[in-house]
Amino acid sequence: MDFSPSDRAAEIVEAVRGFIQAEIEPVEEQYHRDVAAADDPWTPLPLVEQLREKARAQGLWNLFLPAGHGDAYAQQYGTVGGQGLTNLDYAPVAELTGRSFLAPHVFNCNAPDTGNMEVLLRYGTAEQQREWLEPLLRAEIRSAFCMTEPDAASSDATNMRATAVVDGDEMVINGRKWWSTGVGHPDCKILVFMGLTDESADRHSQHSMVLVPRDTPGVNVERLLPTMGTLDPPHGHGEVSFTDVRVPVGNVLAGPGRAFEIAQGRLGPGRVHHCMRLIGLAEAALELACRRSLERTAFGKPIANLGGNRERIADARIAIDQARLLVLHAAWLLDTQGPLGAFSAVSAIKVAVPTMAQQVIDMAMQLHGGGGLSDDFPLAAAWTNARALRLADGPDEVHRSVVARLELGKYGAKR
Amino acid sequence: MDFSPSDRAAEIVEAVRGFIQAEIEPVEEQYHRDVAAADDPWTPLPLVEQLREKARAQGLWNLFLPAGHGDAYAQQYGTVGGQGLTNLDYAPVAELTGRSFLAPHVFNCNAPDTGNMEVLLRYGTAEQQREWLEPLLRAEIRSAFCMTEPDAASSDATNMRATAVVDGDEMVINGRKWWSTGVGHPDCKILVFMGLTDESADRHSQHSMVLVPRDTPGVNVERLLPTMGTLDPPHGHGEVSFTDVRVPVGNVLAGPGRAFEIAQGRLGPGRVHHCMRLIGLAEAALELACRRSLERTAFGKPIANLGGNRERIADARIAIDQARLLVLHAAWLLDTQGPLGAFSAVSAIKVAVPTMAQQVIDMAMQLHGGGGLSDDFPLAAAWTNARALRLADGPDEVHRSVVARLELGKYGAKR
Amino acid sequence: MDFSPSDRAAEIVEAVRGFIQAEIEPVEEQYHRDVAAADDPWTPLPLVEQLREKARAQGLWNLFLPAGHGDAYAQQYGTVGGQGLTNLDYAPVAELTGRSFLAPHVFNCNAPDTGNMEVLLRYGTAEQQREWLEPLLRAEIRSAFCMTEPDAASSDATNMRATAVVDGDEMVINGRKWWSTGVGHPDCKILVFMGLTDESADRHSQHSMVLVPRDTPGVNVERLLPTMGTLDPPHGHGEVSFTDVRVPVGNVLAGPGRAFEIAQGRLGPGRVHHCMRLIGLAEAALELACRRSLERTAFGKPIANLGGNRERIADARIAIDQARLLVLHAAWLLDTQGPLGAFSAVSAIKVAVPTMAQQVIDMAMQLHGGGGLSDDFPLAAAWTNARALRLADGPDEVHRSVVARLELGKYGAKR
Amino acid sequence: MDFSPSDRAAEIVEAVRGFIQAEIEPVEEQYHRDVAAADDPWTPLPLVEQLREKARAQGLWNLFLPAGHGDAYAQQYGTVGGQGLTNLDYAPVAELTGRSFLAPHVFNCNAPDTGNMEVLLRYGTAEQQREWLEPLLRAEIRSAFCMTEPDAASSDATNMRATAVVDGDEMVINGRKWWSTGVGHPDCKILVFMGLTDESADRHSQHSMVLVPRDTPGVNVERLLPTMGTLDPPHGHGEVSFTDVRVPVGNVLAGPGRAFEIAQGRLGPGRVHHCMRLIGLAEAALELACRRSLERTAFGKPIANLGGNRERIADARIAIDQARLLVLHAAWLLDTQGPLGAFSAVSAIKVAVPTMAQQVIDMAMQLHGGGGLSDDFPLAAAWTNARALRLADGPDEVHRSVVARLELGKYGAKR
Repeated sequence: MDFSPSDRAAEIVEAVRGFIQAEIEPVEEQYHRDVAAADDPWTPLPLVEQLREKARAQGLWNLFLPAGHGDAYAQQYGTVGGQGLTNLDYAPVAELTGRSFLAPHVFNCNAPDTGNMEVLLRYGTAEQQREWLEPLLRAEIRSAFCMTEPDAASSDATNMRATAVVDGDEMVINGRKWWSTGVGHPDCKILVFMGLTDESADRHSQHSMVLVPRDTPGVNVERLLPTMGTLDPPHGHGEVSFTDVRVPVGNVLAGPGRAFEIAQGRLGPGRVHHCMRLIGLAEAALELACRRSLERTAFGKPIANLGGNRERIADARIAIDQARLLVLHAAWLLDTQGPLGAFSAVSAIKVAVPTMAQQVIDMAMQLHGGGGLSDDFPLAAAWTNARALRLADGPDEVHRSVVARLELGKYGAKR
Repeated sequence: MDFSPSDRAAEIVEAVRGFIQAEIEPVEEQYHRDVAAADDPWTPLPLVEQLREKARAQGLWNLFLPAGHGDAYAQQYGTVGGQGLTNLDYAPVAELTGRSFLAPHVFNCNAPDTGNMEVLLRYGTAEQQREWLEPLLRAEIRSAFCMTEPDAASSDATNMRATAVVDGDEMVINGRKWWSTGVGHPDCKILVFMGLTDESADRHSQHSMVLVPRDTPGVNVERLLPTMGTLDPPHGHGEVSFTDVRVPVGNVLAGPGRAFEIAQGRLGPGRVHHCMRLIGLAEAALELACRRSLERTAFGKPIANLGGNRERIADARIAIDQARLLVLHAAWLLDTQGPLGAFSAVSAIKVAVPTMAQQVIDMAMQLHGGGGLSDDFPLAAAWTNARALRLADGPDEVHRSVVARLELGKYGAKR
Repeated sequence: MDFSPSDRAAEIVEAVRGFIQAEIEPVEEQYHRDVAAADDPWTPLPLVEQLREKARAQGLWNLFLPAGHGDAYAQQYGTVGGQGLTNLDYAPVAELTGRSFLAPHVFNCNAPDTGNMEVLLRYGTAEQQREWLEPLLRAEIRSAFCMTEPDAASSDATNMRATAVVDGDEMVINGRKWWSTGVGHPDCKILVFMGLTDESADRHSQHSMVLVPRDTPGVNVERLLPTMGTLDPPHGHGEVSFTDVRVPVGNVLAGPGRAFEIAQGRLGPGRVHHCMRLIGLAEAALELACRRSLERTAFGKPIANLGGNRERIADARIAIDQARLLVLHAAWLLDTQGPLGAFSAVSAIKVAVPTMAQQVIDMAMQLHGGGGLSDDFPLAAAWTNARALRLADGPDEVHRSVVARLELGKYGAKR
Repeated sequence: MDFSPSDRAAEIVEAVRGFIQAEIEPVEEQYHRDVAAADDPWTPLPLVEQLREKARAQGLWNLFLPAGHGDAYAQQYGTVGGQGLTNLDYAPVAELTGRSFLAPHVFNCNAPDTGNMEVLLRYGTAEQQREWLEPLLRAEIRSAFCMTEPDAASSDATNMRATAVVDGDEMVINGRKWWSTGVGHPDCKILVFMGLTDESADRHSQHSMVLVPRDTPGVNVERLLPTMGTLDPPHGHGEVSFTDVRVPVGNVLAGPGRAFEIAQGRLGPGRVHHCMRLIGLAEAALELACRRSLERTAFGKPIANLGGNRERIADARIAIDQARLLVLHAAWLLDTQGPLGAFSAVSAIKVAVPTMAQQVIDMAMQLHGGGGLSDDFPLAAAWTNARALRLADGPDEVHRSVVARLELGKYGAKR
């Protein structure tokens, strides 16, 4: 149970830290102000692409690529050292990028593109990889993941109503998806769609995952959804309708009926990434809280010294440290025992980390007074991010039920 | 300790309930969509004025006016029965209006105008009342309250840096205020400004409250502040600079140095109003949660029957009921023992109710999945409202310290 | 919704307060020390009987008797004014007695005797009342209630396995009960037993409630159960076996199959009493916490001024006040709308109050350091009392499910 | 950051697990029943000594001895492999022994003897070690630690009032200590006493730690203190008075004025031991909760499947795992960076772990109904243990203030 990063990972972590401090932090606040002031915030500002070029040149690029089957691409697309990273080695990188809203995009390590790239890497044909994975690895195009639906409780993925039906050598796709993150971005060219193919198959073999080019006739972004009032340009979270959309049957990933299998493989590392980024976000919030509480004075004292504020800071420190160790442990299990061995641990972090982050950020907001709710500080955006992750990739309640089922299973419970 | 409304209040409550159901609920969702789609959301839609006319015609107007010294205006400006209401009688009215975002405006019972009108009612000269209070009571103009400052921890109001200095027969005003709610509205004509007049006076007699017409030279709305991503048009929360602003010394309310005294009188009933509106908001959220959890199905059951959802609903029911009784008790104390007798009780509700509402609404959001974060449901806006009220009118921590001081005072603690 | 006590109740409250301060508080600590040091702690010390005589002489006696059908006994057995009290009028009396461990016994207002007396009052025949109720009202004998079972999850009362079978003109009783409070007392002469009579009847008509004299052959107190290490002499909580116990069929209260109906009627007021006593206990704990935190000094300050201690005191004040209002409201509903109208409210207080009391007492324990865990302060005993009431009379979880069912029922849920 | 045990430690862990399962678990319940039924529970039953002999024979003995300076004694007194263990290697041993009340005593790894032995090992002279340490390592005698005082807030150790004054070649000791665990045991022969020697020295050099033989004239155990109603025989927690007690000045550990320095060194590993034992206790409680909730049925389902019970089980699983990782991390810091490098981490576990354990055990109690409060299950005792550790070795609040001070120190706060 060694959570230390490898030497190479330690070097990458330091390089990422240096890059963020030197290149991203000095410009991030202005970037957000520029987006807010833009006539069309949905046209990406050139800054991100400029930063990407620098990151790529330093090999701080596609760091999410997994050790082993991601090595060839890591070499070709310029990750430092030419090899993918284990989950444990990538974890501190994700924590660092999570402190910043730009960083994941700059290093080509942002959701949902990372998850989609990993699916293509594991399940894509050579043809699919050439057409979609490689431009994604070069950040020439962006992607979206279309799974959740507005008209069904998607916490139970088998509830899904959208269909992906085989019709000769075509898949015919119908339905409505939402919270398709990134679909508002002009570079978004490919959608990974999940839908019902065969209701007569067993419960977890009924659905397919299909590559749907964004410009296929019948695909329509009906609207972009605000999250706590924010549309999140230039990425956006879309509600997308699919009306008699036809793609070749070869666009099905791994073959019809295998969507759940793919989703499970996609989600383990993805949840570790999300959680480590939230750890970074919580650390950033705690740092802001500490600084603010030392700088501001009320009733003749720094506000750090008023009432329970120190206790809140201590509790935040403890909560973040516990959460980080839990995520590192889950990453280590994924690396050493695979998705099944890490099944409960991955659900556990999905329960523990977003809630922890939401609380720490809420505490930091409170210490910032009105400023904490405004966009003068990144706290309101951070809170929204953490809150959304109590629902995204499965609500807390579903993950708790997984943990409980496996715990009770030790004592003979069948389900 | 009789919390029952008077017969007249009970009639008004039923009339308000009927009005909201018949006139406001059917149009509210479209109203928000229209504002969101408007070219200029800062130009008020005619709907509010149309609804106001109906409400005024039925005497559902200025219901906040306090029994006793508000009676003359209640008669003149058309409140049912021609008398003001006690805090206890007004409480259930505020709860009902709190379920809706439009309702407080429709009945001319919205913050901060109610608080400003009450200040003018209690402390304004006949001249000031004629010029500012009466148009406010007619809803011809709107007002803002300029107290909190960006550059000081305003939880300690004595920290305030803005100045209101007597210079002959003028007050000279300088400084910067923020979270001045309503200042973005085109009808906002009058600002109630609080600033430092005499540093040599005793701690609570240094500040003055001054009426500053919005169009006075030197008053500038620097920007409108988003709260959790929302600018809240057409009202807005402004950051306002005052640069050598000059108004006649007669614009000082009650005389120089009396700002704290006025603020205390303003804030007691205002906090009861805020809290009762939040009770209404929490009830609305619980209702949404119940309906959603019965309508949606996952894993073969209505989601109400999954995991701890029923327990959460029970806890919400219990928390709301406790909070409502606490607010009614505070209102009853205000009515029967005045602000001093209700001092701890008013701080207690300011601690208990926004936190309760935030939790109940968060729970309802979770039961709505992604929809709960979007604007398809009023939950994200409700959450923001509740969260902001953990800071507005004094952060939780300051109110807890008041409650603790009075509690420890029973056993001889001096402070 | 008037929670003020009647004039008569207000007088009784003051008399009870005076009695406790003058007669009970000065001797209570020594009483506990004497019990702890006694050779046989199960032999009651004469003090309680001495205090009872004084209380009876002042009419502070059987105050729990309900207004209306309890009036005749209130007159005969000496309650001030010769009438029973409403639930609302009795509530502040119960709060006061709850501050003290002796007081409920001194005023003949202690559980489970009060509940058993109320059952006899409502459902007993004249013969049963003469034989058992009247000596109970005179405190000549004590009683126990035998419902919960060691071998079944008694949260679902229909799980009960003990039997009470009609055999000619006798009831034959078999089974094992535990947590029969008071069964260790030498004056305990009568047991109210609940068991299964007819499995073929509908779910809530299968059980009977039977009067079983303590000395009936086949009744055996197997052991006395410690609660958190305490056997609670001279009352005790017993595990009682019933082996072919035979009593006349006339000992069945209200007739075979009516146990659930009786239990429901018994439990509403009983839960109000329990909760109000806990409110008193929490108040006493908060008072101890305040005094201690002002008296003790650490790091150069009274501990009240360290860290979050004031916030904890404020939160306790607020939590107690909310809880008390919730109980008063439930009492008022019981008085004005009967058990059915108060059904959710009574479950709500059973959820809210013991948890609140447990937390407040835990906080007070923490402020007392090691002393808080010892018996130098009544806090450890108070905690045990509050904790036990999260299980007694139905665990929190069952009461939450009642509240949720009624809440969801508003929106059409059938169960 | 490698938390894996060494190969030798892994073997010891398995041997300890096997010993507990084979030798201790089968007899533990009966042991507690025998103690409860004993005429004199303060006379140790022979069972512990019998088990000790077996443990000693297998080298499962004095496993707490620290790698490095504990090696010589580990060799001499028979620890497997003849070497001490690192904190990280000992941690899983402590977790296992924490599941059982007997186990720590059986392996001679119980507090406070371990801490006292470690003090003697680090600071004792050869003479002191021969006289006191060696018999302790052989378990021939037992010891107590006398630090906390009834008359001062001992959370601030500088508050201490007891004195240890140099008078020629003697120390004269006066004062009153309490919560001296183990002082009730007939084998308790040596007390480690801490008192004020020189008020004029700097704040942390005023106190001395002195070895006081239990039978020195003037030492009197005034009483044994119950914790939540339990006296904890045959060990006990004593209140001890010291009246003009005289011991040679050579009995001072490390020399006058060095008590704080010694206490700090003693407490770091001791807190890791306490916390790991609590992790074991929480695991045992969770196991009981799982088994019970699968075995018992209510409302037609195993209680595991009722309401929020599965969520509670999941939350317990997650909380325990987080806490264990935090303790392992603190142990690793102690091993690699020493007490100063682990300063915040050790305080962090002292805050996090007892509270976590208290909550998990409370949950398990609730799932056991009334049984959970009785002594039919080890839950009530476990709860008391966890609760006491929120105060013992420094209350939560003091440890939070340490964590906060070090956190704020990163941003320049001086204290």
